[in-house]
Amino acid sequence: MTTHDIDVLAIGNALVDVIAIAEPAFLSDNSIPKGSMRLIGADDAERLYALLGSTREVSGGSAANTVAGIAAMGGKPKFVGRVAADQLGEVFAHDIRAAGVGFDTVPMVDGPPTGRCLIVVTPDGDRTMSTYLGACQELSEADIDAATVQASAVLYLEGYLWDPALPRAAMRKAIAISREAGRKVAFTLSDVFCVEGHRDDFITLLNGHVDIMFGNENEVCALYKTQNLDDAMAQLASHSTIAVVTRSEKGAVVLNKGERHVVPCHPATQVLDTTGAGDLFAAGFLSGFVAGRSLPDCARQGTIAAAEIIAHYGARPERDLRALVAATIG
Amino acid sequence: MTTHDIDVLAIGNALVDVIAIAEPAFLSDNSIPKGSMRLIGADDAERLYALLGSTREVSGGSAANTVAGIAAMGGKPKFVGRVAADQLGEVFAHDIRAAGVGFDTVPMVDGPPTGRCLIVVTPDGDRTMSTYLGACQELSEADIDAATVQASAVLYLEGYLWDPALPRAAMRKAIAISREAGRKVAFTLSDVFCVEGHRDDFITLLNGHVDIMFGNENEVCALYKTQNLDDAMAQLASHSTIAVVTRSEKGAVVLNKGERHVVPCHPATQVLDTTGAGDLFAAGFLSGFVAGRSLPDCARQGTIAAAEIIAHYGARPERDLRALVAATIG
Repeated sequence: MTTHDIDVLAIGNALVDVIAIAEPAFLSDNSIPKGSMRLIGADDAERLYALLGSTREVSGGSAANTVAGIAAMGGKPKFVGRVAADQLGEVFAHDIRAAGVGFDTVPMVDGPPTGRCLIVVTPDGDRTMSTYLGACQELSEADIDAATVQASAVLYLEGYLWDPALPRAAMRKAIAISREAGRKVAFTLSDVFCVEGHRDDFITLLNGHVDIMFGNENEVCALYKTQNLDDAMAQLASHSTIAVVTRSEKGAVVLNKGERHVVPCHPATQVLDTTGAGDLFAAGFLSGFVAGRSLPDCARQGTIAAAEIIAHYGARPERDLRALVAATIG
Repeated sequence: MTTHDIDVLAIGNALVDVIAIAEPAFLSDNSIPKGSMRLIGADDAERLYALLGSTREVSGGSAANTVAGIAAMGGKPKFVGRVAADQLGEVFAHDIRAAGVGFDTVPMVDGPPTGRCLIVVTPDGDRTMSTYLGACQELSEADIDAATVQASAVLYLEGYLWDPALPRAAMRKAIAISREAGRKVAFTLSDVFCVEGHRDDFITLLNGHVDIMFGNENEVCALYKTQNLDDAMAQLASHSTIAVVTRSEKGAVVLNKGERHVVPCHPATQVLDTTGAGDLFAAGFLSGFVAGRSLPDCARQGTIAAAEIIAHYGARPERDLRALVAATIG
């Protein structure tokens, strides 16, 4: 890869996670599908928060978690996303910088508050997310600095942020700049509801706009409207994009130009909270990719980072991921 | 005990804990004594926060943790303390109510923001706290409702809040009302720096104003300016107050009218973060006291609650304390 100042530039939601532990009955009582991610408005956010038990707040956001993981692997990432000029916005900005991630998107002064993701963790470690985007959706093209995109080896985008119009336009602009500069673009499908809302766009992205696509089993099946994972993977393999399919305890599959690499999951010390498993998988994978590792090794790094994150609450790494990778892969 | 609507009414700091993990060198580099609690101003709070790594936010406050623990033991507690009308204030109010604690102190609109406690946890589980009191110190006599104090079996006060003048006056008012109503008053020495700043006041409280006094070894030694715990305990025993001395892994000692009850510590599954150990000990003890248990059983309940809290980050209980007590004491 040619010289670059930034390993991975991520554009995503700048969210503070509000984590509560609850029994599955809490979800069914409130008609929330277990394991889902859904967007909610300010009123719903307030109503649901009032119903939740005691919470802990940890900075989150899917792509933000990924770049925090890349920094924990020794990389040089940067993040673009919008917070408000409020206490939760300060917490988000503090934490992402403290994690070693560049962050200079200007906080919004008049407008909605900093976005938050209400995460209900059930005793099986499953997480169910209700996200109030708030300031996140005010990210716009003006926040994309061309020179920064050009200086980044990989541009990484989260599907979650494809939903609101302004950030979608900002991501389209960034993709164009990155490709023009001969850089790589990576994208995560994020969630089934994102795929269902933007299926045509996402398939278009696979045709020449994105170099690496991440998705879990449910997401890639939703993309091709099939229940059959093999069908979905066959269709994914028809594009020139590197496709990375994550399969929880079954590990991951990497598809690239007719090749197919199957990598098992890495043993976790415990499964407390699966929030961020996909985000950290992407962190491990992209760290390896920027370092020029083989695709199977990229996937192995992904499984190591994912195993660390599910062993504790919160989706930002707490252990030295570089050391964990060195101990396993070398 | 006569009929009462509230088991324990606590008056204390309404703080959100900002928890960061760091090596001991971080403390020495910033001239912060390891294991200490100190008060800092807004500027210092901002400077120190900027130096800290990634954080998680969990509602805290010493007496607030205690009443959250009493609720987790099935009791009916209430809390009085001041937050600001800001996001961290909403988090505090949400969490303490979600824990089952009554809380209706009016948030402050114009004034300092909600107080926070920057907690550095070192790998040995020790916690070092730098507290910015913010809105906490604006609590005043007007916030003390006489009928509420009269309806509470025990009034519980934290020494930390004796420092700022307005809350001290509020606590003096509450003590007078409680005693007039024939209720019990409990007090925690909180910290060596509190004892050193208010030694004469605290000794006066022991002479007929407080029925139960909590303190750890360092605090009771500081109270009588001695290095010798036996000396300190002998002096404590000279007052008519029930004195409860907590000794970390050595358990606790209860002194009462010439009696001396020594109770060992309860085994913890792990020691991750000792924040809140003293607060939860008080929760267990007071829950037993209100239920009319013997003093040794009160202390045993205290050690069970303390063992739960040090096994995870954050000073609010995460397991069902009532079940833990039932399994051990019955």
